[in-house]
This record gives sequence, structure tokens and C-alpha cells, in this order.
Amino acid sequence: VTLTISSRQNPLVKRIREAIRTHGEEIVIEGPKPVADAIRNGWKALAVAVSAGSAFDAGAVEVTELSRAVFDSVAETRQPQGVLGIFARPHFDAHAILARRDTIAIALDGVQDPGNVGTIVRLAAAFDAAGVLLLPGCADPYGPKAIRSSAGAVLHVPVSAISPQELLDSGVPLVATAMHGAANDPPARNAVLIFGNEGAGVSQELLHASTLLSIPMSPRIESLNVASSAAILLGRSYSLR
Amino acid sequence: VTLTISSRQNPLVKRIREAIRTHGEEIVIEGPKPVADAIRNGWKALAVAVSAGSAFDAGAVEVTELSRAVFDSVAETRQPQGVLGIFARPHFDAHAILARRDTIAIALDGVQDPGNVGTIVRLAAAFDAAGVLLLPGCADPYGPKAIRSSAGAVLHVPVSAISPQELLDSGVPLVATAMHGAANDPPARNAVLIFGNEGAGVSQELLHASTLLSIPMSPRIESLNVASSAAILLGRSYSLR
Repeated sequence: VTLTISSRQNPLVKRIREAIRTHGEEIVIEGPKPVADAIRNGWKALAVAVSAGSAFDAGAVEVTELSRAVFDSVAETRQPQGVLGIFARPHFDAHAILARRDTIAIALDGVQDPGNVGTIVRLAAAFDAAGVLLLPGCADPYGPKAIRSSAGAVLHVPVSAISPQELLDSGVPLVATAMHGAANDPPARNAVLIFGNEGAGVSQELLHASTLLSIPMSPRIESLNVASSAAILLGRSYSLR
Repeated sequence: VTLTISSRQNPLVKRIREAIRTHGEEIVIEGPKPVADAIRNGWKALAVAVSAGSAFDAGAVEVTELSRAVFDSVAETRQPQGVLGIFARPHFDAHAILARRDTIAIALDGVQDPGNVGTIVRLAAAFDAAGVLLLPGCADPYGPKAIRSSAGAVLHVPVSAISPQELLDSGVPLVATAMHGAANDPPARNAVLIFGNEGAGVSQELLHASTLLSIPMSPRIESLNVASSAAILLGRSYSLR
């Protein structure tokens, strides 16, 4: 007999809510496919919950059934096949990402929109970047919208926080986009491509230490969406590799 | 003395709600900057409404004040400076878009996500495309999310519906992305670049009539987001023009 949890005060329900709220060491992945993909990619499932009436095979991990009302009260997405998993946040080493000189690494500087962060992680996978380094002020790549926008790529692309000073000290050549940059091709390898905040761009401290590139575009337009800029430069970098 | 409308049954309120629901000949633009930009770009404002306490100068167009509760009940976005305008949907001629052979045109085939449609309209502006042709199944470029994603570009980029047959009959060379396409550069001019549905891609009928291109990427990845593909090909096309 399966017990269905119907109290919002149940410890598992509170744990899910807390994980979604804090973006801490426990992260919540929603949807049958993302949860199954995470498990298949070796992510450590701490708990899996389904909405009453939904079935899900989580392998060795026990599956807990929540009443529909309770499930819907915690899940951020609405879907008929309600499944969510709590996973241990993965940790990657920024130095290992920076050590790969056969390709480029990506650094995001205050990219606040989780859709942009997820899209750029997906681009990192598509164009074989070493990984994504998150400078301060970025959206959590393991939040639900970023995971969706990444089309699952966050499950296998190395992502790590980094400070501006660590990036400056790394010795890897830095490249950033700026309106007054040269309209040159991006490097194919041995560089960090920095993409900046949706409004303010890359911070001054990093701009000063970077080779500046611009993307040729109509003079009537001020800027591209950061994910569009990343698509163009990462795609071009890959084609030159 | 300004009268504040506090009834959800008021004719203007019902008209706003109907325009948002039907995506018909009257479209609603939300936010002080988008509404002001639309008016500045020569869009025909049929009515402008503000949330009680907000001020807005709509030039010759009368501004109607709605109570906060009523304003919030109709507006899709939540913002402190509540302003929305009803505008006549602009109409552009597909043949005029196709007639410009000095650049490329864009056709979207069942691109369902309004964020993708808006982002691609923004790319059309950045890379001087002749305009955006909408095949069946696309999100409304004049919906609130598409307008936001376009960063205002929908206010000046020509957009028009078109049928597959009209596109096939136009005589303009068609180019589409497909996994098995050649990894060549896109054309710089005299072509229509077709981007397909987020899941199914470009429809068979159009694929058969198109030159197929692929974007070089990691063999481990199946596909890019359609807006990322568009960024790469439109940016490259512009740089070759």
C-alpha cells in the first residue's frame, strides 16, 4: 500500500519548497524526462516525488506520492505527468574548466535571466566549450527555467562559480564583446569568452583586461540579446576549431 | 476631474480583454516605454489606459484611468507604472518583403514560442533582413512576450503572414537548416532563410524546395534552439553582405 502525502507540512514537502526557495545544495528538477535524464547522467537523486496517479521508475531511489494539491503547491511547472526530484547540486572545478586549452571556456558576468543562462549552457554543449564560469550576479543554472532553456545540457556541461579576481589571475586570455571592439573572428581555443549583463554588459574591471570584439550589425541597433551574441561567437569559434 | 473606471464590465476594459484574447486587428502593448515607442514609430493608438496614480503623455490620444484592480485584471505584465495601449495591428505586404533582393528575408514555419519569434524579429532588425514572413503555426509577433523579446524591434521590422504556396511561388531561393544539410555559409542576399518549429523543424513541403544548410556543432548534440540557429545564420549572412 502506497501512502499519499496530503499535508503541506510533511518534511519532504517542506524540503522541496526550501530547495526551490534557497537555490542551495539541494536542487529540484521537474518533469519526467529531466528527472530521468539527471539520474541517467549520474546525478545523485536524494528523493523523487510524483503527483497522485503518476508513475515513475527512479531505479534504486524510492518514489513518494504527493496528493495533486500538494504536488501542485510546490512544483513550479504545471504538467499532467507530475514528477520532481531532489538532487545534490553538482560541483565542478573552475580550474579544470580553465585548464582545457583545446577549446574555449565561457564566463557569464551578471547574466540575470535564467532563460539566457540555460540557453548559453546549451550552446556550450553544442559548441564543445570547456564549461561555463559564473561570475557574481548570474541566475542559478540549476533553477527550473534555466534547466528547461538548456534542454538538459546543464546535466552534463561543467558549470562553476568564479570570482573576477580568479578569472583575472588564471592567465587565460580573456575576450569580451563591446560596441567598440574589433569586428574580428573570436578565438577557436585557449581563451575565455565573457558575456555580460543584459543591460550593463561586462563589468569595467574585466573589460579592461580583455580583448574586445564586436559583432557586425546594423548601426541602427544598439545591442543583441546576450544569448544571441553567445550563439554567434560560440558557433563561429567552433567552426574555426 | 478625471473619471477612474472601476468596473470590469466597462466597454474599454472589455475591449482590452478581447484584444488580448483574440490576437485580432486590435493589439495591446504594455508598459510605458513600449507604448511610447509604438506611438513614436507611427503606430496608430486607438486608446491608452493607465493604472490609477500613473501618468502618461500619449500626445493627441486621450488617456483613460483604470482602478488598480481593474488594470491588474487585464494587464498581462505586473509593473508599478501601469500603462497599456490598444493599437491597430500593422499590416505589411509579403511581396514587398520578398522584393528586396539586396538582403535576405526570414520565414518562420510553426515557431510556436513567442519568445523565439520576438528574438528572431530582433535579429532581423540587427542584421538588416527585409522582414519576417510567418508561415502557419507561429506565435503572434504582437503578443506581449514577443514584443518584450524583440526589445521593441517589432515596432519597425516588417512582418507578414504568408502561405507555404505563396512562398514556393515567389521564385526567391529558399534556404533551410537541416541536420543533413551542407556546412556552408548562408547566402548574403536574394534568399529566404526558413526556420522551423521548435520540435519538428521545417515542414517537408518546404524542405524539399530548399537548399539545406547545417550549422557545424558537436556530434553529441541533436539541435540548437531555433533563435540560436537564427542568430548564427543571420549574423553570418550580414557579415558576408
